Amino acid sequence: MKALVYQGPGRRSWQEVPEPGVQTPTDAVVRVDAVTICGTDLHILKGDVPAVEPGRILGHEAVGTVTEVGAGAALKPGDRVLVSCVSACGRCRYCRTGSYGQCLGGGGWILGHHIDGTQAEFVRVPFADTSTHFVPEGIGDEAVLMLADILPTSYEVGVLNGRVAPGDTVVVVGAGPIGLAAITTARLYSPSRVIAVDLAEARLEAATRFGADVVIGADGDPAGKVAELTGGLGADVAIEAVGVPETFELCARLVRPGGHVANVGVHGRPVTLHLEELWARDLTFTTGLVDTYSTPTLLSMLGAGLLDGGRFVTHHFALHDMEKAYEVFSHPQETGALKVVLTRG
Amino acid sequence: MKALVYQGPGRRSWQEVPEPGVQTPTDAVVRVDAVTICGTDLHILKGDVPAVEPGRILGHEAVGTVTEVGAGAALKPGDRVLVSCVSACGRCRYCRTGSYGQCLGGGGWILGHHIDGTQAEFVRVPFADTSTHFVPEGIGDEAVLMLADILPTSYEVGVLNGRVAPGDTVVVVGAGPIGLAAITTARLYSPSRVIAVDLAEARLEAATRFGADVVIGADGDPAGKVAELTGGLGADVAIEAVGVPETFELCARLVRPGGHVANVGVHGRPVTLHLEELWARDLTFTTGLVDTYSTPTLLSMLGAGLLDGGRFVTHHFALHDMEKAYEVFSHPQETGALKVVLTRG
Repeated sequence: MKALVYQGPGRRSWQEVPEPGVQTPTDAVVRVDAVTICGTDLHILKGDVPAVEPGRILGHEAVGTVTEVGAGAALKPGDRVLVSCVSACGRCRYCRTGSYGQCLGGGGWILGHHIDGTQAEFVRVPFADTSTHFVPEGIGDEAVLMLADILPTSYEVGVLNGRVAPGDTVVVVGAGPIGLAAITTARLYSPSRVIAVDLAEARLEAATRFGADVVIGADGDPAGKVAELTGGLGADVAIEAVGVPETFELCARLVRPGGHVANVGVHGRPVTLHLEELWARDLTFTTGLVDTYSTPTLLSMLGAGLLDGGRFVTHHFALHDMEKAYEVFSHPQETGALKVVLTRG
Repeated sequence: MKALVYQGPGRRSWQEVPEPGVQTPTDAVVRVDAVTICGTDLHILKGDVPAVEPGRILGHEAVGTVTEVGAGAALKPGDRVLVSCVSACGRCRYCRTGSYGQCLGGGGWILGHHIDGTQAEFVRVPFADTSTHFVPEGIGDEAVLMLADILPTSYEVGVLNGRVAPGDTVVVVGAGPIGLAAITTARLYSPSRVIAVDLAEARLEAATRFGADVVIGADGDPAGKVAELTGGLGADVAIEAVGVPETFELCARLVRPGGHVANVGVHGRPVTLHLEELWARDLTFTTGLVDTYSTPTLLSMLGAGLLDGGRFVTHHFALHDMEKAYEVFSHPQETGALKVVLTRG
């Protein structure tokens, strides 16, 4: 089969690789019907995630059809499933408290990280029963694919960790797909205003479409504008959706005393925390990998029309056009790409 | 009257100053019957708190007797009160949600910081009705004095912000008075074990007396020991009670995925947050200035015998021996000092 293989920092190839098979009784093999590329894949390609070794098939988001299962799996060939970015053994102390992202039993974020991932014609999914979700009838591949990562990540790690509450002023720094998903899911809590900060005009236009009330661009003054909008206090919650020190440190400056900074970005470098100013400000900083405990709820919301997954998708490709899809997704300033979807022909 | 005056970094003097009087209708003047010195005063003397200007009378903890009140105060001359480290206007948005430490109406930590403090024969207390607490009959000055700062600070900013829960492994880094108060108040939540980390043997002995189950000293390996005690996972909660980058960064290494780092220390320098490792670990970092919303509860606990304030006090002085008290308190390694109490002769 063909797959997208990481060849070390800056290098990738769409190439022939052996087809995966069931290795343990709880595995399933899933034929990939729709797959997307994540900002995290670009972080990997930059070399920010050294645990990913050359030779690894990337990708941790897919919708597909089960083709083969181990003896211990309840899934059946033909089942249509969402392959989640987080796999879960279902048995360890973290899984048993819903913290699947921290699974100690061999799960967590493993696809396209520690084991081969979903940017391929087929993918082996360990702990298949607890690492996939049945896709309800009537919900399309494209919409549900956004629940493989960006929607639960932004919701759990951004909105819920940040404790967004009715009436809040919420700043989202970074208006890529994760930031837009944060804006979308923050609105579920009826904030007073959502402010989006990004350097790219096209992303700020998207932020407005996705529900930002105020946008601040490259020539703006985020601290000044947030202060002006909040009587000099600062935001209640700042959601970091980029993953570089500058944006994290900006978030720390944008929140009011008693505020929350929820980091969602994948970071490759340390940041400076100005505790000499912040020690007395009653701040809460959270980090997190998505657990996907919200995925069943988000699936219901898709079904109920409370969320629209498809609106994140700007570009469509055939699966074998993976290299082209990476080119488009890697240059959002030129292409206007948010999420790209690749489908089996 | 006499008072302890900050003369710029490294310099202080016990000297004659004008006696304070009522300046606004909500002020009271309190005769200082018992006063103590805080680790924060030493931070100020190191130059870590640049907002404190030379000429400032230090001190933000006292028990005393009201001698004069403004026309708008309900307090009366003769009332015996605890002067809290945090003053509160009682009217601003922060005070009205119990976040007195962040008072926007001119309160917060002002005594011995923005205005003259308690290390003096008399002190002017603004917003007197909402910045002092009546001392119940039968509780001695020395015990209640520990509720002016260290007990509510360690309890609110350490134990409550850190969300210490039954069964937790709690690490307290720094076993000075704040760390010992954190150990004491963490035990109220029935943790599985409390681990104290400090470089000084005498402080570790105190930590054991105050309820630490395990102590780790200068020749110990905190990360290795905590891992050994927690099946390789790390602590549920780490409480930073020192205020230097090394101890904060140690706390970030000691907690398990999903754990909390509660910073209590007063910091004078930025710290490095290794987000390149921590972004995916579901960590929560909190900072805070005490609000003193717990002071009434802590007073009840003193009365009920659930807390012992007096055990923090190792040295007693007359008020006019302030310089000697500072010497003893500044050199805990030699003197074994925890809290020192100075009383009116």
